[in-house]
Amino acid sequence: MKIQQLTADISLKRQLEGGNEEQLRTVREVLADVKAKGDAAVKAYSEKWDGVALDTLRVTAQEIDEAVASMDPQIIADLTEAATNIRYYHEQQKRDGYKLPLADGSWLAQRITAIASVGLYVPGGSAAYPSSVLMNVVPAQVAGVERIVIATPCDKDGKLPAAVLAAASILGVTEIYKMGGAQAIAALAYGTETIDGVDKITGPGNIFVALAKREVFGEVAIDMIAGPSEIAVIADETAHADEVAADLLSQAEHDPMACAVLVTTSDALAKAVSDEVEKQLQTLPREAIARKAIENYGAIYVGETMTQVVDAINTLAPEHLEIVTKNPEAIMEQVKNAGAIFLGRYSSEPVGDYFAGTNHVLPTNSTARFASGLNVDDFIKRTSVVYYSEQTWQENAPKIARLARLEGLEAHARAVESRGWNKED
Amino acid sequence: MKIQQLTADISLKRQLEGGNEEQLRTVREVLADVKAKGDAAVKAYSEKWDGVALDTLRVTAQEIDEAVASMDPQIIADLTEAATNIRYYHEQQKRDGYKLPLADGSWLAQRITAIASVGLYVPGGSAAYPSSVLMNVVPAQVAGVERIVIATPCDKDGKLPAAVLAAASILGVTEIYKMGGAQAIAALAYGTETIDGVDKITGPGNIFVALAKREVFGEVAIDMIAGPSEIAVIADETAHADEVAADLLSQAEHDPMACAVLVTTSDALAKAVSDEVEKQLQTLPREAIARKAIENYGAIYVGETMTQVVDAINTLAPEHLEIVTKNPEAIMEQVKNAGAIFLGRYSSEPVGDYFAGTNHVLPTNSTARFASGLNVDDFIKRTSVVYYSEQTWQENAPKIARLARLEGLEAHARAVESRGWNKED
Repeated sequence: MKIQQLTADISLKRQLEGGNEEQLRTVREVLADVKAKGDAAVKAYSEKWDGVALDTLRVTAQEIDEAVASMDPQIIADLTEAATNIRYYHEQQKRDGYKLPLADGSWLAQRITAIASVGLYVPGGSAAYPSSVLMNVVPAQVAGVERIVIATPCDKDGKLPAAVLAAASILGVTEIYKMGGAQAIAALAYGTETIDGVDKITGPGNIFVALAKREVFGEVAIDMIAGPSEIAVIADETAHADEVAADLLSQAEHDPMACAVLVTTSDALAKAVSDEVEKQLQTLPREAIARKAIENYGAIYVGETMTQVVDAINTLAPEHLEIVTKNPEAIMEQVKNAGAIFLGRYSSEPVGDYFAGTNHVLPTNSTARFASGLNVDDFIKRTSVVYYSEQTWQENAPKIARLARLEGLEAHARAVESRGWNKED
Repeated sequence: MKIQQLTADISLKRQLEGGNEEQLRTVREVLADVKAKGDAAVKAYSEKWDGVALDTLRVTAQEIDEAVASMDPQIIADLTEAATNIRYYHEQQKRDGYKLPLADGSWLAQRITAIASVGLYVPGGSAAYPSSVLMNVVPAQVAGVERIVIATPCDKDGKLPAAVLAAASILGVTEIYKMGGAQAIAALAYGTETIDGVDKITGPGNIFVALAKREVFGEVAIDMIAGPSEIAVIADETAHADEVAADLLSQAEHDPMACAVLVTTSDALAKAVSDEVEKQLQTLPREAIARKAIENYGAIYVGETMTQVVDAINTLAPEHLEIVTKNPEAIMEQVKNAGAIFLGRYSSEPVGDYFAGTNHVLPTNSTARFASGLNVDDFIKRTSVVYYSEQTWQENAPKIARLARLEGLEAHARAVESRGWNKED
């Protein structure tokens, strides 16, 4: 890995693929088609692109049961424990509204209600992602979302990965549809004859899924469009080079555009990590992907002081941040921008990807400056309530009417004053 | 106003202007230009479109002082009281993170930090909108945002509305720039020689501002793109027709595309409100705008039962909802989707636009199904923290490694296991 002196113009930002004109045209066509023709269009696109002709889109109870039965019980236990941990962490985020009494019997309030229905897209392809199911479904359940739907593409034989069905089953989610790509997003957004539309769509996907989510945004809510994964490690001379290298590679193996950065005050560690990364790369099954990521978006920066290192991290605003130093908590206190923080030697980043309980859906590409990881608030909405008594109205109506007229909005002023027009009751 | 029988296919949704290709091209050009040339480009566009040649963009302390001095002291008092009310309501939304102890000294946490810098766009034109300043700035201040900037276009003499400067001054906001349109959004997003870029941009604007906000989204955060205003009123036979009509018109006067809907169980009220709307329209200064809105997007629906009425409201998910019935609170409990609710005869909707303390930046076009009004959470971010002790790591590493391998991510598994490789310390 390249070792460089830390300077102030550090940046994680990559030019991300936004989709080309042709892809966008295709997506718009699919969306319009599914909106007009419903299930038939979804099935036709599944046949065209996924090579599978389906009679019914909905996964049956029997398919789910068979999937669970086919799994290693140890894995079921691991997924169940992970779900419990995720629920425990997210339950702290649940909250009530409030009611604020004012004078004369008046009050203001904030009501919290759950979004009624949410659709989770789980990508298909070569691998299965049961962890995505846990990370998206549990916060929605904690929020109180009544209807949770999963859409995920099946293989050419109409089969879904057992691990995905098992994860859904562990959480009690049984409304699962075999569909992928833009047609799945369209079906979730607009609804079809057999699928009721949802209010919000979450979950990662390929460029067609991402473009479709952008297009239906407004009609329904979406989570953020996730970019390639990132890890930044703050480490001093107490860190173990092989562990830091392994953690950098854990993110690099995700994507050739993944980003892995070490920022350290130790020249010796910088050199040792660089050597370890090369050594460990050579035995990785996903070496080609990880090597590209390391070559293009991997870097080791050496800073003079820990203050300079932390400043650099706040500029980067990385998705994942590990702090592997003598006193990691003190350094954490100075960190302002990061999606998720992992403290100390034993909090390797994959701990959070799968198991600890925190969410792995996190802001990428420096958006941790203003965005947060997926959380319970993403599945609720807040409604304000005003109750004014006659006395409060009488006291404040002249002020409100003045402010409305200041903005040239006479009908606003008259509405407030209307309660005073020679009324008898 | 048209009176119709309430049916299940009620809808508020309008085809909103998304901007045409030429407008988008212009906006992209402006953004690129400001990114490349900074202040000079901002000034050039202000000269081109607003007809004003500015030496400096920043408003001086003297200009602010003069604006405040020029205002009616009663208005200053009204704005100050409104700001106090808004602060009181929003302060209840402030919250701390949490720390969750696990076994063996491990813990998880959620940290809450404020977004560092926020830019508020205040539209110019014929009217001044000091209430926009209060509604956007106060939640950001409550959240703890350190730097709050206002951008607003000046007139041909380089002057800004005194009411806007006064509202800013009341809140202690002094970093104000004379700039409007897409060039203002560009300057806020990218920064220039004299203006530091911000992390989030909020506030309403014309189609160029809306398009520019969409374009810079991702680089910075934005609030939602607001659509035309909406009001829905639930009323029974106890409501006063003139008051309901006045409230419907208060939203209709905003925009020819504004929406004003009464849903009632009373035929008599329906008829009386329809007559009152026509009567009151005739004396409104903004009659032309309000009449267009009422003709195109105004409607009175008569339902059989209050349950049917409430179901219709949950489908509409209106921005503003008034409940003017015998027992409004009981009906409120059944409402799931609304941006803001106003209860009873004396809680006329403009009470919330200006004064009560709730926010007037609210979700439109049925997005209250999944979105909320502007609130303190819009100005904070949440960071998760994982601290695993050696013992917790040791106990859970095999489970995490199994789950990583289940997803085909070997480097993840190795990272977690790396702590176990023949280590001495």
